[in-house]
Amino acid sequence: MKAVVFHGPRQVAVEEVTDPKIEEPLDAIIKITTTNICGSDLHPYDGRAPLDEGMVLGHENMGIVAETGPGVNRVKVGDRVSVPFNLACGTCRNCNEGWTSACLRANPSGQPGAGYGYPHMGPYWGGQAEFMRVPWADFNLLELPAGHEHESDFTMLSDIFPTGYHGTELAQVAPGKTVAVFGAGPVGLMAAYSANIRGASQTFVADFQPDRLALAERMGATAINLADGDPVEAIMEATDGFGVDCGVEAVGFQAHDPAGQEHPALVLDNLVSVVRATGHIGVVGVYVPQDPDAATEEAKEGRVAFNFGAAFEKGLSIGSGQCPVKRYNRELRDLIIRGQARPSQIISHELPLDQAVDAYAEFDRRADGYTKVVLHPGQAA
Amino acid sequence: MKAVVFHGPRQVAVEEVTDPKIEEPLDAIIKITTTNICGSDLHPYDGRAPLDEGMVLGHENMGIVAETGPGVNRVKVGDRVSVPFNLACGTCRNCNEGWTSACLRANPSGQPGAGYGYPHMGPYWGGQAEFMRVPWADFNLLELPAGHEHESDFTMLSDIFPTGYHGTELAQVAPGKTVAVFGAGPVGLMAAYSANIRGASQTFVADFQPDRLALAERMGATAINLADGDPVEAIMEATDGFGVDCGVEAVGFQAHDPAGQEHPALVLDNLVSVVRATGHIGVVGVYVPQDPDAATEEAKEGRVAFNFGAAFEKGLSIGSGQCPVKRYNRELRDLIIRGQARPSQIISHELPLDQAVDAYAEFDRRADGYTKVVLHPGQAA
Amino acid sequence: MKAVVFHGPRQVAVEEVTDPKIEEPLDAIIKITTTNICGSDLHPYDGRAPLDEGMVLGHENMGIVAETGPGVNRVKVGDRVSVPFNLACGTCRNCNEGWTSACLRANPSGQPGAGYGYPHMGPYWGGQAEFMRVPWADFNLLELPAGHEHESDFTMLSDIFPTGYHGTELAQVAPGKTVAVFGAGPVGLMAAYSANIRGASQTFVADFQPDRLALAERMGATAINLADGDPVEAIMEATDGFGVDCGVEAVGFQAHDPAGQEHPALVLDNLVSVVRATGHIGVVGVYVPQDPDAATEEAKEGRVAFNFGAAFEKGLSIGSGQCPVKRYNRELRDLIIRGQARPSQIISHELPLDQAVDAYAEFDRRADGYTKVVLHPGQAA
Amino acid sequence: MKAVVFHGPRQVAVEEVTDPKIEEPLDAIIKITTTNICGSDLHPYDGRAPLDEGMVLGHENMGIVAETGPGVNRVKVGDRVSVPFNLACGTCRNCNEGWTSACLRANPSGQPGAGYGYPHMGPYWGGQAEFMRVPWADFNLLELPAGHEHESDFTMLSDIFPTGYHGTELAQVAPGKTVAVFGAGPVGLMAAYSANIRGASQTFVADFQPDRLALAERMGATAINLADGDPVEAIMEATDGFGVDCGVEAVGFQAHDPAGQEHPALVLDNLVSVVRATGHIGVVGVYVPQDPDAATEEAKEGRVAFNFGAAFEKGLSIGSGQCPVKRYNRELRDLIIRGQARPSQIISHELPLDQAVDAYAEFDRRADGYTKVVLHPGQAA
Repeated sequence: MKAVVFHGPRQVAVEEVTDPKIEEPLDAIIKITTTNICGSDLHPYDGRAPLDEGMVLGHENMGIVAETGPGVNRVKVGDRVSVPFNLACGTCRNCNEGWTSACLRANPSGQPGAGYGYPHMGPYWGGQAEFMRVPWADFNLLELPAGHEHESDFTMLSDIFPTGYHGTELAQVAPGKTVAVFGAGPVGLMAAYSANIRGASQTFVADFQPDRLALAERMGATAINLADGDPVEAIMEATDGFGVDCGVEAVGFQAHDPAGQEHPALVLDNLVSVVRATGHIGVVGVYVPQDPDAATEEAKEGRVAFNFGAAFEKGLSIGSGQCPVKRYNRELRDLIIRGQARPSQIISHELPLDQAVDAYAEFDRRADGYTKVVLHPGQAA
Repeated sequence: MKAVVFHGPRQVAVEEVTDPKIEEPLDAIIKITTTNICGSDLHPYDGRAPLDEGMVLGHENMGIVAETGPGVNRVKVGDRVSVPFNLACGTCRNCNEGWTSACLRANPSGQPGAGYGYPHMGPYWGGQAEFMRVPWADFNLLELPAGHEHESDFTMLSDIFPTGYHGTELAQVAPGKTVAVFGAGPVGLMAAYSANIRGASQTFVADFQPDRLALAERMGATAINLADGDPVEAIMEATDGFGVDCGVEAVGFQAHDPAGQEHPALVLDNLVSVVRATGHIGVVGVYVPQDPDAATEEAKEGRVAFNFGAAFEKGLSIGSGQCPVKRYNRELRDLIIRGQARPSQIISHELPLDQAVDAYAEFDRRADGYTKVVLHPGQAA
Repeated sequence: MKAVVFHGPRQVAVEEVTDPKIEEPLDAIIKITTTNICGSDLHPYDGRAPLDEGMVLGHENMGIVAETGPGVNRVKVGDRVSVPFNLACGTCRNCNEGWTSACLRANPSGQPGAGYGYPHMGPYWGGQAEFMRVPWADFNLLELPAGHEHESDFTMLSDIFPTGYHGTELAQVAPGKTVAVFGAGPVGLMAAYSANIRGASQTFVADFQPDRLALAERMGATAINLADGDPVEAIMEATDGFGVDCGVEAVGFQAHDPAGQEHPALVLDNLVSVVRATGHIGVVGVYVPQDPDAATEEAKEGRVAFNFGAAFEKGLSIGSGQCPVKRYNRELRDLIIRGQARPSQIISHELPLDQAVDAYAEFDRRADGYTKVVLHPGQAA
Repeated sequence: MKAVVFHGPRQVAVEEVTDPKIEEPLDAIIKITTTNICGSDLHPYDGRAPLDEGMVLGHENMGIVAETGPGVNRVKVGDRVSVPFNLACGTCRNCNEGWTSACLRANPSGQPGAGYGYPHMGPYWGGQAEFMRVPWADFNLLELPAGHEHESDFTMLSDIFPTGYHGTELAQVAPGKTVAVFGAGPVGLMAAYSANIRGASQTFVADFQPDRLALAERMGATAINLADGDPVEAIMEATDGFGVDCGVEAVGFQAHDPAGQEHPALVLDNLVSVVRATGHIGVVGVYVPQDPDAATEEAKEGRVAFNFGAAFEKGLSIGSGQCPVKRYNRELRDLIIRGQARPSQIISHELPLDQAVDAYAEFDRRADGYTKVVLHPGQAA
């Protein structure tokens, strides 16, 4: 089959690889109809997170069940399904508790949490390909209505819609609350969108890319352009000095100023400043325990010297981590089906798989308008 | 009246001051029967937190209502009451939401949160004295059964029993969970005790003071002596490599090694290491946004460079801040009344008020056996 | 002053009564700008709930603070405020826990819960008048932005918007959930509206009054006309036989069929049938412990013989009771201020106080189009 | 193998039946070491719930994995395991949400919820036998430490310990709360025990069997003997007229007075009376939607005419239904392993399987001292 294969930093290729096949009784093979490029795909692409040569990329996948193992008894060949980016066994303690993001059995390294086509998440090939193998298929796959309707909305269910939503869950967004989202990339936009779904009274989105801020405003958020000055001042002024109830971090460890200088503590400091005393912060931007290419010794060890003293004095809570997609994807799917959510509005490009190499390059240099790229393996180039 | 007055670092005196009186219609005057010295009283005592000369110390108070203002309609003269250390108006947004620790109106500085006899918490005199004034008395005071029974248990209700309990609430301790408490001072011991009340299956308490660890063991906890080696290794081994579900920080910004060297990130790093993926950390040890006497530039600005990258990778949540005492003190009182809790077991000294000066000095140098000192203003010297 | 006075079943009059005055230090006097007629005002009006002759009616009130007692220190003369229908002391155990609907001190009868102008809720005059007295004013009053903007939205904050919202809280409505609301009176409509704010994917509203069903549809709900057949069948069919996640009872003990025959168990039975196994039901329609005029002996004693066996088998939870308005009114106010909610859309009539007598009569006979009547005491007749 | 086979009301036999075998790839066969007789086994035994002739009884089972299907990849032959009484697929919506009590796929009837050896719960043979088949074994089985330790404590994990605990969860028992449990059968006793684990300040247990009340007292509860008068009066007096925070119903639809007369609404009425306004009731005693042998027409249709009007006026919530065992059994197991819980203390008889017939008869007539009977298939008669 054709797949997007990683050969090293900034070296990806669309090439022929062996077809995946049923390896275990609970496996299914999915024929991919849509697969997205994620901002976190750029971590290995940029060489910031080491990935094995030969890995097929892509953890945001959906498609049609093409084959099932003998132990699969719920999903059936022909079912249209969304594949959560976390790969989980469904029977360990963490899976039992709904933490599929920290499955204790799926990652051969023994570390909690597994995924497809991603560093440190196990040997599982991604879905930027014509087919992919999904272990524990009955547990992992989310059934979708047959047909082609809502395809570009449903493709947001494998990662960024739930991930943005998870940010608002960790931040305890609820009806009437005010929210500040830092970062207007796809996850930040989905967090702002989710805040709206959850009944927030006002959502601020801070970034310095005008096209992304424009998208945030189209979703009903209030844009805060970092290029215009201190976002803390802007948000405090807009809230009569009170601050917001909830904060979402959607930037991650590579947080930098408009000039490109990295400041790993910058966003957390801003959030601690704008979130009111007793408020809540949800961190879904990725931070890592080791970062050999970081600018400082501290950052290389995963240390982020934000103002924890101020957080304590204000009595803040900080939730963090990878989203357990299964916890949210069914309800978010139902919002799409019943016409209450249209997350596809952030998609900027829908391309055939063959154009993946260029798409990676453009997305990586944050080419103007490259908000979210979606690939269709079955589509003619 | 007689009171413990602050005159500067390591300079306190028991001396005559003017009696407090009703200033506002909602005030009450309390005749103090018992008042404790708190570990956080040592922050101004040590000069680590600047306090006005002449302030009466003491925020852990109980006694008898001696006088009430004309707007007081619930508590009555003669009522035996506990005085929460947070002073709160009862009608602002944060009080409405149960966050009396962040009252928006009680602190004239405008900063959320007020208290008695403490830096940055307003001009309110403490209760290491014969009498004290309590504003918004109907809201703040917790009624106790008449008489003298359980006096030394009830005196734990003004601060450390609820504060330790708050640590376990932030850490989401629940039946069957395993817990690690760092710090076996009074708050850490009360956290361990609270973990037991909440049904934890096992609670580890880490410290290096043998007398405190012995108390922890008497309460059913498993002692981890920091002098014996790495507590992370000890706890991981005792949990078959899984770690604990819940962690409580009961040390604070002056965390130091057995040799006395301060490492502000040490305890948080240990907690991030021992708490299992998807677990919860509650921080009730005090961290401050500015600390001019800290060892490093970062620490002076309240920055704590702990391994946030590891916390994110594990999907941990961190709750923090001062305890809203009113949220817990009624239920904890009822546990005492009905014979289910005896927090007084950590008291090492019950002294007349006149001996406060020596008691401060001994407690400050952590003299052997000085776990918790309780003062009785009405008691003959 | 002029006020709407109760003289017996179907006998109300707009007449002169003595002005209210400050009686206690924590009282405030409110000059009423808007006051609504509530469906539950019809219980005494219909003689179904005995009320003292001479009582001033009206528990849905807002206005301007005209005078404050000496113990009031938060609200100020001139403040624009909403008055929650529950009258609460702010310092008892239930108030501390946020259950202002069950204040233990405000009702002289000793029964939990007090209110204005209503049977069994204490001697407090209502606000269908030029002025009203509000005890514990600092605690009870919700501050509103100065001016006249949003007046008809804000007037929904004293009762029905929070009450409808409370129904969705008890029913645990959350993003993506499906909801069935029985009853499209003002509370049912506000429940449907609240379900939408909370992110429900679909909300069904069942009633047999076409004008009310039309309003429900304008709010985005799916109307189920009871005149068209069994609502259980209709809802089960619309949910592919699965049922809804959440049910809201907004009818109460006088539930009747289109022919007017009362069946107190009818709505609960329907909810037990349409709510999925493990789902949740919120009951905000009023049920009473004694109902001397009820049709059956059971109903006279408050007994409702619904199919509890089926509820158990499905593992349903049922929450019930009067709404604690203060728990929700601040956030709902903020949704209005920030343009996210417009509950005034259900108002059918805005009238001067002088027209209250006719308005009661028309509303009581459910005259066509009389959805919600709002009175303005200061408005010329 | 030998098994306890149902042949009709009051007709059970220990006899040879065919051995269970692996039927599906995810099955396991368990060699039973301990299996209990449950109070609900008496529903078919008494002819109150129709069961197919030939069914093997027993839903409270534990043992050793003897064989696994090819799709089982977590549990291994030789593992010691507890078998939750709810049989669940692990991949449907309800299982995903933790409601294994309402699995949507395991019961061939299509009704939510399946189990072993019980009416309406599917065709699955029970475990009062030498072996039993467990479908979806990786999901359903709870691993236990190897060996024989704690056998009689662990055997409580399949049903009544979690079921009693679920009652306290539905009733929202928390530290310091007061609790009333109606019914001192095994489930009621486990509810009282669980209330203690959860930190209740006082737990009342009402029944009229002195031996069961004595057990309740040994667990630290306060016994209320129904033979001594009105339990409502007794509990109200013991709580200074306030009532309890939480109520647990552990009796069910066959509630009767000491004279044996059934009153299906009796216990719910008592709970509505003793639970304080805003309190919570958890119903784990079984109620059924149809009961052909009931005394009244209402009861035959599952209708229970309790005072719902009073419940509404007090603002009570009522949770109900079968316990989802998996939600609790891991933590309860850990409490046993770490020495914090010893639920075996309610066991009155440990017998070989051969004595099951007599044991059923004695337990059914509530012979003195027959609190809880445990059978050991492997034990010599």
